Amino acid sequence: MPNKARNDFVQTVLNRYNDITIKALLSFLPAKEPSRYLYDLLPSYPERPGKGLRPGLCIATCKAFGGDISSSLQSAVAIEMFHNAFLVHDDVEDGSQFRRGSPALHTQYGTGIAINVGDALMVQSLRPLMANLSTLGPKLTWQIFSEIEYMVSQSVEGQAMELGWVRDNSLDIIEDEYLRMILKKTCWYTCTSPFRIGALIATGGSINLNRFNRFGFYVGAAFQIQDDILNLIGDDAKYGKEIGGDIWEGKRTMMLIHTLQACSETEKERIRLFLLTPRSNRVESDVRWVQSIMSKYESIEFAIKNAQQLAGAALREFYVAFGDIPDSADKKFIHDIILYMIEREL
Amino acid sequence: MPNKARNDFVQTVLNRYNDITIKALLSFLPAKEPSRYLYDLLPSYPERPGKGLRPGLCIATCKAFGGDISSSLQSAVAIEMFHNAFLVHDDVEDGSQFRRGSPALHTQYGTGIAINVGDALMVQSLRPLMANLSTLGPKLTWQIFSEIEYMVSQSVEGQAMELGWVRDNSLDIIEDEYLRMILKKTCWYTCTSPFRIGALIATGGSINLNRFNRFGFYVGAAFQIQDDILNLIGDDAKYGKEIGGDIWEGKRTMMLIHTLQACSETEKERIRLFLLTPRSNRVESDVRWVQSIMSKYESIEFAIKNAQQLAGAALREFYVAFGDIPDSADKKFIHDIILYMIEREL
Repeated sequence: MPNKARNDFVQTVLNRYNDITIKALLSFLPAKEPSRYLYDLLPSYPERPGKGLRPGLCIATCKAFGGDISSSLQSAVAIEMFHNAFLVHDDVEDGSQFRRGSPALHTQYGTGIAINVGDALMVQSLRPLMANLSTLGPKLTWQIFSEIEYMVSQSVEGQAMELGWVRDNSLDIIEDEYLRMILKKTCWYTCTSPFRIGALIATGGSINLNRFNRFGFYVGAAFQIQDDILNLIGDDAKYGKEIGGDIWEGKRTMMLIHTLQACSETEKERIRLFLLTPRSNRVESDVRWVQSIMSKYESIEFAIKNAQQLAGAALREFYVAFGDIPDSADKKFIHDIILYMIEREL
Repeated sequence: MPNKARNDFVQTVLNRYNDITIKALLSFLPAKEPSRYLYDLLPSYPERPGKGLRPGLCIATCKAFGGDISSSLQSAVAIEMFHNAFLVHDDVEDGSQFRRGSPALHTQYGTGIAINVGDALMVQSLRPLMANLSTLGPKLTWQIFSEIEYMVSQSVEGQAMELGWVRDNSLDIIEDEYLRMILKKTCWYTCTSPFRIGALIATGGSINLNRFNRFGFYVGAAFQIQDDILNLIGDDAKYGKEIGGDIWEGKRTMMLIHTLQACSETEKERIRLFLLTPRSNRVESDVRWVQSIMSKYESIEFAIKNAQQLAGAALREFYVAFGDIPDSADKKFIHDIILYMIEREL
């Protein structure tokens, strides 16, 4: 059963760091011409309610390792801005309709303008990283830059894997491949890179950052699987995207992968045909049928169990990543966010 | 009449620098997994035949100012890689069908994969810029980085203007707005930034780079208008894109802007309705009619005259930008490329 006090603590810290980050992020975005189809739209996703996981983990790690908010803020802003750039592009790539409780940008302004807004957000993400030069000096600035370059590379690699499965209508993905995909697509830029960059800033590069890699994977994977679960059974007012959207989009989630392995040949063939249908031709009754077949084979329970196991592994791995530093509120926040990841409803 | 010897000289130099750049660019692209929908596709546009204007201008400027190929090559690679990233995204945004003589990437692999490939090319563009650190040192590396950040910002701004005109179905654009759009969309990253970065590397930042701004605008604008003209009356085997493609896409070219100002209200209304039709519903006979109305009002002649005037202004401005440096083959190449821009057929 979820521990309310613990999750409230996590949420409070997340909100605090998110507010600071979004305020700083918005101050980095220029207000100039061309406004209507560019600079007015850059704040669109950042201003929508978000969890602020990535900047929160970066700032908290920096503080836990003895640094402060101000030294990590610009990097946290850059990470969050890249995240928003990718959300804009992902929504086009996946054909998503909603994001953070409002229509996806491309449904409001068209695909071309949305792609360009994402590109602009990517360029703008470089500015806070360049601003590090005067506050952190050239050496750290470059190391952060390399971390970001690696993080973004991992994201596009994971995205390519996922888009490739949809394009090929792959039905025989195994869980290991799914986990490798989310390691790249989600874990690096949601957890591992924020941990690494926060600690890099706090320690001036004096510790081996690889200590965060497994921890980041476990936490990030638990987060992503919970996200897929909420996409199926969440409350759309809290979740901010259309419930069942992943099925409409044909996404290879852990639940779909499990169902495809467990179901009969006839059922598999019907799923194959559903996934082969262009998204715009898919119908509600088929989406509901896919949901029912996932229920039949208890694929959601399977995914919940997997997320729990990953969270358990993260709890152990926490001591590798954070065990040797003094206790603090920020260290506790990172510890407590592990179970928050699988207990959250938004 | 075009001067064949001069244009052959320009073409020879362009080819030489392009070959060096593309070879270096391809060596920067990793060959790894996921290959099929990502790393295998990154070389797709760079490997197609291109003019190599941008790296050519960067390398030649560096050499003309006393630098060498090797010190400017990584920056030239980055500029060319950003260019390719934007081509992939532009083709999606504009709904273009062909690029450099072959089908546009999104027509081969779908919109999602193409956007992601463009994103990956953008990230990869950072690597040659980061490699500057060990060869040029931190100060120049950061200055080049700032130049690139500005260049890419200008490109997305110009792109936003152009996409906004299509989206709003704007009919009353004046030439000054068109010129401001191409200043941003084309001139900076095709000419001005390559000049600035080449000279920055050669001089170690000892000259004021703003001397190139007007020259870059004149040369780049002449280039873009010639490009629009070739899109209408070129030879598709040489040009590499579908002839008339700009009309199919509803692009606000100088010819269309001139026709809209010159034509009757009835004709303007018919153009308005044509442009209002979704691209996929436009028909060949209407495209031909738009071409015929452009001919009727001599809009192509008007654009040719404008390109010639811009090239004339560039010939004068050349002495501001390059007048005070010793004569050399590279200086001659940059001088001679001015008229090449408006005489080229590809």
